[in-house]
Amino acid sequence: MIKTKQINKSGELIHLISTEGIPKSIVLEILDRTSNFLNFGEKITIQNSPVLKGKTVFNIFFESSTRTSTTFEIAAKRLSADVINFNVPNSSAAKGESLLDTVDNLISMQANMFVIRHSQSGASALIANHINLVAPGINILNAGDGSHAHPTQALLDMYTIRHFKQDFSYLSVAIIGDIVNSRVARSDIHALSTLGVPDIRVIAPKTLLPPEVSKFGVKSFVNIEEGLSGVDVAIVLRLQRERMNSPSLPSSEEYNKLYGLTKERLVKCSPDVIVLHPGPMNRGIEIDSLVADSSHAVILKQVTFGIAVRMAVMEILNRASL
Amino acid sequence: MIKTKQINKSGELIHLISTEGIPKSIVLEILDRTSNFLNFGEKITIQNSPVLKGKTVFNIFFESSTRTSTTFEIAAKRLSADVINFNVPNSSAAKGESLLDTVDNLISMQANMFVIRHSQSGASALIANHINLVAPGINILNAGDGSHAHPTQALLDMYTIRHFKQDFSYLSVAIIGDIVNSRVARSDIHALSTLGVPDIRVIAPKTLLPPEVSKFGVKSFVNIEEGLSGVDVAIVLRLQRERMNSPSLPSSEEYNKLYGLTKERLVKCSPDVIVLHPGPMNRGIEIDSLVADSSHAVILKQVTFGIAVRMAVMEILNRASL
Amino acid sequence: MIKTKQINKSGELIHLISTEGIPKSIVLEILDRTSNFLNFGEKITIQNSPVLKGKTVFNIFFESSTRTSTTFEIAAKRLSADVINFNVPNSSAAKGESLLDTVDNLISMQANMFVIRHSQSGASALIANHINLVAPGINILNAGDGSHAHPTQALLDMYTIRHFKQDFSYLSVAIIGDIVNSRVARSDIHALSTLGVPDIRVIAPKTLLPPEVSKFGVKSFVNIEEGLSGVDVAIVLRLQRERMNSPSLPSSEEYNKLYGLTKERLVKCSPDVIVLHPGPMNRGIEIDSLVADSSHAVILKQVTFGIAVRMAVMEILNRASL
Repeated sequence: MIKTKQINKSGELIHLISTEGIPKSIVLEILDRTSNFLNFGEKITIQNSPVLKGKTVFNIFFESSTRTSTTFEIAAKRLSADVINFNVPNSSAAKGESLLDTVDNLISMQANMFVIRHSQSGASALIANHINLVAPGINILNAGDGSHAHPTQALLDMYTIRHFKQDFSYLSVAIIGDIVNSRVARSDIHALSTLGVPDIRVIAPKTLLPPEVSKFGVKSFVNIEEGLSGVDVAIVLRLQRERMNSPSLPSSEEYNKLYGLTKERLVKCSPDVIVLHPGPMNRGIEIDSLVADSSHAVILKQVTFGIAVRMAVMEILNRASL
Repeated sequence: MIKTKQINKSGELIHLISTEGIPKSIVLEILDRTSNFLNFGEKITIQNSPVLKGKTVFNIFFESSTRTSTTFEIAAKRLSADVINFNVPNSSAAKGESLLDTVDNLISMQANMFVIRHSQSGASALIANHINLVAPGINILNAGDGSHAHPTQALLDMYTIRHFKQDFSYLSVAIIGDIVNSRVARSDIHALSTLGVPDIRVIAPKTLLPPEVSKFGVKSFVNIEEGLSGVDVAIVLRLQRERMNSPSLPSSEEYNKLYGLTKERLVKCSPDVIVLHPGPMNRGIEIDSLVADSSHAVILKQVTFGIAVRMAVMEILNRASL
Repeated sequence: MIKTKQINKSGELIHLISTEGIPKSIVLEILDRTSNFLNFGEKITIQNSPVLKGKTVFNIFFESSTRTSTTFEIAAKRLSADVINFNVPNSSAAKGESLLDTVDNLISMQANMFVIRHSQSGASALIANHINLVAPGINILNAGDGSHAHPTQALLDMYTIRHFKQDFSYLSVAIIGDIVNSRVARSDIHALSTLGVPDIRVIAPKTLLPPEVSKFGVKSFVNIEEGLSGVDVAIVLRLQRERMNSPSLPSSEEYNKLYGLTKERLVKCSPDVIVLHPGPMNRGIEIDSLVADSSHAVILKQVTFGIAVRMAVMEILNRASL
């Protein structure tokens, strides 16, 4: 995997590409700043934060995702930034231009921050490395690259867990689903590990369990009942529709039978378990409605926290660049 | 049809789903406030109204309509709101998510107002009912739901009529076209009725005449010449292209011959008749160019008034929610 | 070609449709104002210019072009305008509405400025003429119409040339490519001519050389080596993919062999030649990577300058209309 420098010599976060390698102090600072942005968007608000006033954020989505794009757009606008949305599949990429030519063009338009989503692992780091050479000062915020990383999703998961559980140091956390292909799983594991969670588990069919997770002290489970036993937090991954007919994956009905989070399985967890899901949910596949609509589910809170986390990340990146 | 509460206990408008059931006092207040917003957008303007400063309006279009979406976007921006456009056909709905899961997600992003268009009658009321349960404080503004209602179109029609005719109490108003499938016709009839118009008529082929209109005192005409006789206002409906090959409808040529508003038919109306059309026009089908370009047509005024009416509705909804 | 009045009786620029007929004093004023906007978008900026505060700019693209549309959007937002993007292929045009009905509707929404791109030559002038009749006060900014004109591209080319060469009065400038179909070539030739460039050349296969250029004193070359001899500025045109299989054009491989700007050909030019390209580049077709990535290429500077030039044009148009 392509590596990039996320921290400058003064120890400040200049890009957010991956939760891997971000020190605990910065992760905690992001979570602390998030709280300050939580009341934004509520009825009482009459003024956006001026943090990014006069700044331009480019939302550059080489892979379409209306919802994710929107959460970054809302976050940037609540910080008073100007936001320009690029849906690159419709743009010059289609005209035969290379990735770096497209990026060079966007750089020349003089934005302050690029939010980048790309279907290829490593694309955000590649762009950040290029930026560091030719246009230091532009902050790169990875909004998901292939199966590599989705750091703001992980940070909002961490905020959600801290909100409900306060202390990371005693937690058991299980991640259930297509681990091997999941950028969310990877970014969650790094963040949980950084925050000192002692018991991290992944639950998946053998074909979807990456062998390398063990080096982070992560325990792998093929049997979901075993894996869920006593956990405080269950993170259910979305089963990607486009992967449902893959040979490494059972049918969606069978997947539900083997790995769906059902009411029956929920009782294996700690009695005050919380259930997270990055959305959008496939009800009846990876999660049953009785779970999704139960008081254990904190899935909608994740959405609210997600915008505040993105505001916090943008604030911290912008501060570093000054 | 699904019903929802549009007025709160203090008598304030909290949602605008339908013109049905909105008291005359509120309709008149909207029309009065509209005048205040009419000079916005003109050259002399150097400042938007701060009414929605720091507020977020979500334009949620489950059914595409660039023009309608744009008029709401302009209205919200002229009130200093941040506007986020969701084109839901491209979004999570396509990923197999249920309507209420999508809505719950949007709610969690903490907007202040949802402008909603949906191809299904009752969708906006369903969403408003859900909002009232889980997130009171978000205002719902129906931008058209199936064949049920299009209240801002009706209000801009009312503003246009009042602008040119001042007094509703003596008017004859005819609506011509596919009445049975028209949300505009339904919303117009309720608003005209609330405002005390004594003579409301609908003109259509028998197959497109809904029997229930008679209960509002509306007179039905199959013969257009009879129906237009002496009217002060003619509201021509757009013939939906996608319905043109329906068995209940004649061909577009035959429709023009039987129900098109021609110069010849216009003379049946009052000499100072005004002609309205919600746009976009099919010239030569429901309306002839000689009519559309005549001094009787006030179709472009409707567009200008439409933005101001939407500003007024947004202002009034926002005030109620405080 | 349809003509329109770009200058009012007080000698002010009210529309920018073509560089043809714009007096040198106004061209120079645009270039001078551009410099003032060049620092916008940089890190130090904390405030946008208030020039268009409270004004609305409609970006009306009858022909899709994400990148061009975006540069106008950024320019307008940096002047504090509200920007509304219309992608008309998706809008009412598709619903069978005529161009002028669409334009009349947009006029009725009361914007202050229309940025218009259209695939048909003359469309922007047609709209400007209509505006002059029915809604004087709205400024039209042509963002490219068919093969007629692309004036902001020409102005940013002029700014780029002046930035690197200071003085126009001694320059040799060559434009290479599909001259006959290029709005960029036409607009560049008029601007270069207005600014007093003594030696303007076009280089193309015979089938792509318009005979009328000679009347502007432009010299035509079929042989690229001859045409490039000693030039100070080489403007390489993009080979439109959709035209690549046209009978008047060789294959892209053969085009590169005959007219591609290669390192070998670059040595025919003046030693300090600068190379411009409107982007996006087809590397290996009209321009080789060794040229595109050389220190002679100023292609990314053009992008940066392009936004500032558009800000300057918008400022000057807006001032005239007050």
